[in-house]
Amino acid sequence: MSRFRQEIAEQPAVAERVLGSAAEPVRTAAAAIAAAEPAGLVIAARGSSDHAAVYAKYLFETRNGLPVALAAPSTFTLYRRPPRLQRFAVLAISQAGASPDVVEVLSEARRQGSVTVALTNHPDSALARAAEHVVQLGAGEELSVPATKTYTATLLVLAMLSDALSPEPAFTAALGRIPRALRSVLDAETALSGLAGELVAATRLAVLGRGYNLATALEVGLKLMEAAYVVAEARSVADFRHGPIAIVEPGFPALLLQAAGPAAADLDELGADLDRRGARVLSIGEGAGQPPGRLSVRLDTGLPEALTPLTLAAAGQLVTAGLARARGLHPDRPRGLRKVTSTR
Amino acid sequence: MSRFRQEIAEQPAVAERVLGSAAEPVRTAAAAIAAAEPAGLVIAARGSSDHAAVYAKYLFETRNGLPVALAAPSTFTLYRRPPRLQRFAVLAISQAGASPDVVEVLSEARRQGSVTVALTNHPDSALARAAEHVVQLGAGEELSVPATKTYTATLLVLAMLSDALSPEPAFTAALGRIPRALRSVLDAETALSGLAGELVAATRLAVLGRGYNLATALEVGLKLMEAAYVVAEARSVADFRHGPIAIVEPGFPALLLQAAGPAAADLDELGADLDRRGARVLSIGEGAGQPPGRLSVRLDTGLPEALTPLTLAAAGQLVTAGLARARGLHPDRPRGLRKVTSTR
Repeated sequence: MSRFRQEIAEQPAVAERVLGSAAEPVRTAAAAIAAAEPAGLVIAARGSSDHAAVYAKYLFETRNGLPVALAAPSTFTLYRRPPRLQRFAVLAISQAGASPDVVEVLSEARRQGSVTVALTNHPDSALARAAEHVVQLGAGEELSVPATKTYTATLLVLAMLSDALSPEPAFTAALGRIPRALRSVLDAETALSGLAGELVAATRLAVLGRGYNLATALEVGLKLMEAAYVVAEARSVADFRHGPIAIVEPGFPALLLQAAGPAAADLDELGADLDRRGARVLSIGEGAGQPPGRLSVRLDTGLPEALTPLTLAAAGQLVTAGLARARGLHPDRPRGLRKVTSTR
Repeated sequence: MSRFRQEIAEQPAVAERVLGSAAEPVRTAAAAIAAAEPAGLVIAARGSSDHAAVYAKYLFETRNGLPVALAAPSTFTLYRRPPRLQRFAVLAISQAGASPDVVEVLSEARRQGSVTVALTNHPDSALARAAEHVVQLGAGEELSVPATKTYTATLLVLAMLSDALSPEPAFTAALGRIPRALRSVLDAETALSGLAGELVAATRLAVLGRGYNLATALEVGLKLMEAAYVVAEARSVADFRHGPIAIVEPGFPALLLQAAGPAAADLDELGADLDRRGARVLSIGEGAGQPPGRLSVRLDTGLPEALTPLTLAAAGQLVTAGLARARGLHPDRPRGLRKVTSTR
């Protein structure tokens, strides 16, 4: 079994652990952010961590009322003209904590006097040293190059941080149900591998979500590129309609990631539209979407929509693992990638 | 000749006109923004206008020190829990000014008391009515579905706004040279069509930029999807290295968009890396990059890097027009798209 697949399976246990180990540092970071009364948040990240940042944007804007800007690291590193961050709290997310550009955003924010928080799996990293507050992901060593357990651990820490900033008993209770929900996704592996079987011949596809699960579409698209070498056009449903939809021809595969909630109707409509265009519409629904069948898998973990990016990401990881296997690829070490990517 | 190609050709004249007609409304909007002393800007847009917003992010962060957040409209429309915008100035960009989600972001910002500015080609639109300040693009009616002249007109207005907020004589002078620079891009059409000829058989490609020209990579990628039906993985060089680069196999086409400046070395290194992997590396350089040849076109308009997204976007439009022609496609009306897309 690949490490990629092994680490996917570790996620329920990792989530269980994170709920305990991250609670205290999350409370400390939340108190510091709240005390600073920032106008908004700036988040610096790359790759999968950047998709976690997209999730954080929806979470902190919707649940906490805080506008979120995703940092453009080159303004700090290449252009050396960083924006004024004094009125913002700054988060940096990096599994290894080593990419110089992400470290530089956080360091500059601290020089400017912003509250700084690092989310990293490596508490001894350059990023952790640069930050005032550190929340360790506690996912255990990740050996697969494509991230899995550190991605969902990051989402969980972000959700805990959002809850600590604006506590809500129903949300807190739902956080506690995440390990079991992730276990039930693993139980759906056969159906998810079946979905992968439908993609064996694909060289390109669209991966679509909206709202909270835009992040999931981006992350599942990246997994499919990294581990199965399919070019994935990953978008929000709304952005897809504003142009990229022109690429859809008969037989074009599209994977819809959908959760029950305000965004579900948009996915339903797009699915019907793509059907009419002759696309091959596959879907994974969380309490929403098509009834289970050859082209769709339905999960019903009962999580609120704001937490379904964890379960839908895990489902997408299993589709990716199934597709890599079906194609005879080894997902642990994608061509041309190392575990730690340093960009400036 | 297609309207798409006609409107590409109109860009020097449009830029000339915008430099005059937008000057006064830009000054008024800049004065209102400056008076509010915002912590940062929030920008709402979709499609090509959203790529203009990405350009604006680099411009306002680097030149004006203002952190920029791109709005997630669904937090306003679907979730109905918009973030607190009082400490931000809010821009909305839309050619037609009709998409309900973009209008709603601006309306909510105005209800919250933020300074609101609309950039639109239609001063009688819902968006213009919702905004306190309106800057008309003045690009003339755009009939092609894929945007060309309204895109570069938007970039120009954004650059004028940045200059009005932090005036710099050399930058102001460079703005005046844009019409001539766009004319020289049109003169390079034969070479750019040659580049298109290299893509005739492509079903997918990567389009890569960094810094100011990340926006250009996103926009040229979208043009290629809309008008030539190639799936384009458009990314910053740094993000491409953090995962998607795994899709590159021998013969995989990659289009590099590069300008002289701090980001150029990154593009050079990635180009060399992709060469080693056997990719087919095409490039368009603005005072940088490969010497002219079958696989590369070099422009030398002399614009500062911060303004090269206009000329490189126009060059990308000409590549798209050439590719659509070579494939026997009619670019004015891509399948499944209308000129005005309404998303909520």
